[in-house]
Formats: sequence, structure tokens, C-alpha cells
Amino acid sequence: MQTHIDTTAKTVVKLLKEKEITLSTAESCTGGLISAAITSVSGSSEVFDLGICTYANSAKSEFLGVPDEIIRKHGAVSEETALLMAQGIRRVAKSDVGISVTGIAGPTGDEGGKPIGTVFIGVSTEKKTYALENHFTLAQGQTDIRKSVREQTVLKALELALNEAQAF
Amino acid sequence: MQTHIDTTAKTVVKLLKEKEITLSTAESCTGGLISAAITSVSGSSEVFDLGICTYANSAKSEFLGVPDEIIRKHGAVSEETALLMAQGIRRVAKSDVGISVTGIAGPTGDEGGKPIGTVFIGVSTEKKTYALENHFTLAQGQTDIRKSVREQTVLKALELALNEAQAF
Repeated sequence: MQTHIDTTAKTVVKLLKEKEITLSTAESCTGGLISAAITSVSGSSEVFDLGICTYANSAKSEFLGVPDEIIRKHGAVSEETALLMAQGIRRVAKSDVGISVTGIAGPTGDEGGKPIGTVFIGVSTEKKTYALENHFTLAQGQTDIRKSVREQTVLKALELALNEAQAF
Repeated sequence: MQTHIDTTAKTVVKLLKEKEITLSTAESCTGGLISAAITSVSGSSEVFDLGICTYANSAKSEFLGVPDEIIRKHGAVSEETALLMAQGIRRVAKSDVGISVTGIAGPTGDEGGKPIGTVFIGVSTEKKTYALENHFTLAQGQTDIRKSVREQTVLKALELALNEAQAF
């Protein structure tokens, strides 16, 4: 999986550079793994200025502008929060594309109605903002659900970033 | 190396929880790997609210309050910048301990007088702020200097966080 992540990150950075597009990230359950993947690529500083790991709900509000009432009403792990995180990071980073992640990586933390492996990934550009709901399970050959969910999330987020870059 | 990082991160989170200490991170060359290591530990949300990957110099100024003139005078990779990043993240995250990293991971990016592998790690608490200058080289058995410098930096930063937690 790590090899796949590294390869995709390289492709994303290459395309962003070619198209002169900048990307920013707002991460909750992945905790910085997406920004780490992007910045593992030499030269990524041309296209990546800022990533924020807003692990606490208060950080999602304070640094990304997600209203407290949205988190209270829909939950931190929700489509609504993911959308606002993606818009928020794009705005504060002044980037072309904002990517956000909020989810339940496990092994504990099952949130009312939202089982472990539920992850919302948000994407925001000038033209549109959307969020995808994912339900990740333990990948084949893996034993650590938390690691597995986080890695699958990183790969999916990078693939969405790639799609956006291709569409620019 | 990854196993060593994972083990140290677990020890750090365990101790922070026991002592009810909160930690925050401001990362440049490690790009989020320290926050990713901390949040790889289940239950880390009790002690970790916020990590910022300030990859661009402008992000170091805007989000951590490092004055532009400090970066211009001493360089982004400097003891002065590391100190101010650590103080800055501790202040904005309202945490007990702030850890910062700024360095040259390579394979390109040699900055006048500062070779690849030069990494400053800053630590800030209410009582003191300091920064350590490190000169990492390719670790035995490794072939990727960028990966190797980043991993050694993460481990060193976690060890410094552990020292601080022990001293609390």
C-alpha cells in the first residue's frame, strides 16, 4: 500500500506542477499522512504551501471556520464537516484545490450510526465542492484496522486530488 | 526505523496521557510525519489537538507568527526560525508542549552554508524554548536521502517530546 501511495503522490505532484495548480490539506483521522505523502516528493514545495491537521473539533472551527453548530448537529465525521473543512483549507491556504478528511479510523471511536471505517473526503475548487463517503474495512493482509483505514484514506484522497488536477 | 518511530510515538502518547500534557506540532521538512506518528496511536486525541505543516515560508509567518525578517535574515532553516515556530504552535494550539521542525531533507535544496540533512528541531514549553541543530546523513541500509532524513527527524523529535513529557 505504501508503494501505491508514494507512486500516486509523485503523479499528483508532477501534474500539479505541470498545470501550476496549488493544493492544501485539512486532515483529521489521517493526522498528516496526506501532507506527508505529498511532501515526500522532492519539489513539492512548488505546489504545496500548507496542511493543517485539525484533530480536535475546536481546531476544525478555529482554523478552518467550520461552525460549532455544524459539528454539533451533523458530527465531526459527516459530509457537512468534510465540505466545510475542504472549503476552509482552500480559503486559508489560498490554494487552487483543498482536500479534507474526517473519519473514524478505529479501533475505538464508533460514533452513533457511523461505524469504524467511515471516512468523508472533501474536495474544494473555485468551481465546486463535494465530499465522498467511504466505508473502509481491514485490507487484505493487514492486521491493524487503524493503519489500514488511514492508508486507504490517503490513497483515495490522493486519487481525488489527481482527478481534480486532471480536470483543471 | 518505522517500528522504532511507532514504538516511540506510543510511549510519548502514553506518558502525555498519564501526565495530562498536550502537544502540538509545526512541521516543515517532515511535512506532517510527526503528527501522523502521534495520531497513529489510538487515544491520541486526548493529548493532541493540532498540527500544522507550514511548508511555505509565508505559512510559517501567517500561521505561526514567525516574522518575515527573521526568515530573510537567518533563513527558514535556522535555529531562530525553529524557536519561533515552536513558540508559535504552542501559542496557537494552546498546548503545553510545542514541537517544531525545519530542515533540508534533500535530495536538492542545499541552502547557502547549510547542507542537506541540516534540521533544526525546536521545543517550547511554558518554562523554556530551545532548538537543536542536527546533521543527518543517509542511514545504514537506506537509499533515499529524503526519506532517511525525514524519518530520523521524526524519531529525534519524538524523543525530545518524550524528554519534555518526562520533565513535566
